[in-house]
Amino acid sequence: MFTNVEHIGIAVRSLTDGNALFTKLLNVAPYKSESVESEHVSTSFFQVNQTKIELLEATDPASPIATFIQKKGEGIHHIAFEVDDILAEMERLKNEGFTLLNETPKRGADNKLVCFLHPKGTSGVLVELCQEISEL
Amino acid sequence: MFTNVEHIGIAVRSLTDGNALFTKLLNVAPYKSESVESEHVSTSFFQVNQTKIELLEATDPASPIATFIQKKGEGIHHIAFEVDDILAEMERLKNEGFTLLNETPKRGADNKLVCFLHPKGTSGVLVELCQEISEL
Repeated sequence: MFTNVEHIGIAVRSLTDGNALFTKLLNVAPYKSESVESEHVSTSFFQVNQTKIELLEATDPASPIATFIQKKGEGIHHIAFEVDDILAEMERLKNEGFTLLNETPKRGADNKLVCFLHPKGTSGVLVELCQEISEL
Repeated sequence: MFTNVEHIGIAVRSLTDGNALFTKLLNVAPYKSESVESEHVSTSFFQVNQTKIELLEATDPASPIATFIQKKGEGIHHIAFEVDDILAEMERLKNEGFTLLNETPKRGADNKLVCFLHPKGTSGVLVELCQEISEL
């Protein structure tokens, strides 16, 4: 089950500039920063009610965020939905014809297991499923 | 104050196809459809916890959604934040240097007053502020 819009990921060129800008916009400071080695990104998080805004800066050219910015510029990169059972949702969505970008859940930022769906099957929207590791 | 991620707007070529796809993805049906004449769009809404997913189809070529899809294809179009006082937030953000796309709030979908910020000043993200009309 999809239980929440957990976060919205936004690709930025500079986390320093992005943090300053979104602090002014949202009128709240980021509550944490984190690097995700496997994705080659540095991230920061802002909380708005039950949803987070995640800023993502590429740490090297191999990062998917570097590719995204090169192609499309800065902007909204993905929507992450919290699910109550990531394995069950991955199975359900695969059976519905969606393409999973990773066949087994992988470790993402913020102590989550995550799985991405191919945007070709979701009207151009990069969809992330995520579940808190401590809930497993 | 920014009180919630009220909705995420997604531009689709066909609301019929989009509704079918997002019903499969989210495993829930849209709870309403609505046309917004002023924006030249037909919309539908899905609820996920406290946030809505809004699908937007252009009703004619003058629609901003038609322009968006022509340039970028289907995908995430905007993030809408619920605010507790839209006039105060518009004033605050203008003073912070953000560019408002409309100088006075206008009527949007879902019984809201809305204001958009120019994406050039927000890392490429089209940001909508919205407030329920009945709260004014």
